[in-house]
Amino acid sequence: MAKNGKSGKSSKKGKKAQPNPVDLAEARRLEVTAGFKLAEVDPDSTPGLSDRSVGEELFVARDAELAELQERMYAQARADVPNAPSVLVILQGMDASGKGGIVRHVFGSVDPQGLQIASFKRPTEEELAHDFLWRIRKQVPKPGFIGIFDRSHYEDVLVQRVRGMAPPEEIERRYDAIIDFERELVESGTRVVKIMLHVGRDEQAKRLLERIDRPDKHWKYNEGDIDERELWDEYAEAYQIALERTSTPEAPWWCIPANKKWYARLIVKAILLETLRGMDLEWPEASFDPEVERARLAAS
Amino acid sequence: MAKNGKSGKSSKKGKKAQPNPVDLAEARRLEVTAGFKLAEVDPDSTPGLSDRSVGEELFVARDAELAELQERMYAQARADVPNAPSVLVILQGMDASGKGGIVRHVFGSVDPQGLQIASFKRPTEEELAHDFLWRIRKQVPKPGFIGIFDRSHYEDVLVQRVRGMAPPEEIERRYDAIIDFERELVESGTRVVKIMLHVGRDEQAKRLLERIDRPDKHWKYNEGDIDERELWDEYAEAYQIALERTSTPEAPWWCIPANKKWYARLIVKAILLETLRGMDLEWPEASFDPEVERARLAAS
Repeated sequence: MAKNGKSGKSSKKGKKAQPNPVDLAEARRLEVTAGFKLAEVDPDSTPGLSDRSVGEELFVARDAELAELQERMYAQARADVPNAPSVLVILQGMDASGKGGIVRHVFGSVDPQGLQIASFKRPTEEELAHDFLWRIRKQVPKPGFIGIFDRSHYEDVLVQRVRGMAPPEEIERRYDAIIDFERELVESGTRVVKIMLHVGRDEQAKRLLERIDRPDKHWKYNEGDIDERELWDEYAEAYQIALERTSTPEAPWWCIPANKKWYARLIVKAILLETLRGMDLEWPEASFDPEVERARLAAS
Repeated sequence: MAKNGKSGKSSKKGKKAQPNPVDLAEARRLEVTAGFKLAEVDPDSTPGLSDRSVGEELFVARDAELAELQERMYAQARADVPNAPSVLVILQGMDASGKGGIVRHVFGSVDPQGLQIASFKRPTEEELAHDFLWRIRKQVPKPGFIGIFDRSHYEDVLVQRVRGMAPPEEIERRYDAIIDFERELVESGTRVVKIMLHVGRDEQAKRLLERIDRPDKHWKYNEGDIDERELWDEYAEAYQIALERTSTPEAPWWCIPANKKWYARLIVKAILLETLRGMDLEWPEASFDPEVERARLAAS
């Protein structure tokens, strides 16, 4: 986020530069850089935004800008602008960390026609017979789209590591394969935004209990969630390694404290807004001569 | 809609039965039945809803119900309920009749994770080499989803008829093929809602001019739009035939006056709401024993 000068991307466009509701200089510390320690991120904290109501108010006020930037990006692809850009938002986190809520509440304010949502479950037999990126590549966003991955290729170095589903040397290979894959995406015009929703162990228990107790939440509960929960420390280690090894300047990880749902949603929306602002999105040029078309229309 | 007793579907559930903001007894006349004449539908009219502000206010108040019904449907599929239902909304209309705005404004209030949007452009060579329903079948909504077709298989009896892109006997065959295809969908648990946005000739000119004039709308303009516009009467005839022949009790057409965008959006949302209300959507049963899981969670 351009504000504190740390980023290469700059939101030059003066026209729309109202302040982001979030103090991004502060929130930027959530970006994973050298020396990152997951254990030091407090899932209860709300860096850059102490007052929920002020944040939400300013947040809603930015919806129109977010929607317009998304439409500009979409318009470029529709108008066949060469190398029209796209955005890929990768969401990771333990069960009940709030991934679904992010999709619903953050992306609910942009045109659903411009979204391409992919949810990655346990791989099928066919998927397992291919390289781990095979099923992922098929779902990368089309030009002009905001792609959202609800879980992703990171499962292949998270659950697969924790559960020993692949040999250590294969897991090892995957970190570099992921970096190469994401670099390829970035080079072909996709901004890659990686979000880890960092929920605390007690907060997860509370949320799982709600899913067990409430009939309108039963469908979100899976008996396997507790098996995973029992491997909490192993997952924490796998996340620490994955984030450390794959957070690159062109495709950085953000580790977002997620015990407060409102906070996680606000921050992710702020990151999305800054990402789009940094893309210099213009309306595409007319591919026709307005004078000629006005005359044709009048005569029709 | 159940209210005036004309429909077989009834929104039995008492629990959520707040009035629909739209007078559906009146709006129901927009459903295409025997004797329908497109020429008699005034695109400027607003049947069932004279006061825009009252309608919009009540409309927003129904957003939560709409979102919940959609979530119930989605939950059924996620919980592997056998024969989980889905909804398919088919949008047709001349250029600039407001199809995109419907997707954005009507479906913008439900969870984007439960939407499956398909936009049908001019068919590719590969698509043309297959039966006209080949590309359509691939996009029918998965169980639990609301599918939206922005244009559809009806193009194959509209533009293809008007432009003579297929022989008359093939066009003729397609009406029945469409009826069979849609019946098949309905029998497998998909509610089919067909919306024709009826824009007037002058209003279309106004909207096309805006696309020619405004840089933020250029991308929506296509020089071919005027070629189609010049065949207005031929299209009106093709629509008349298509709507007349393919509006069935299980998959009826709605012909919606569309000169007033707010009106078309409100009506489509009302139809969607009534459709979901009529589906008896319950939260799926727990697939686990809450007592057991509570204990497992506590021990974890």
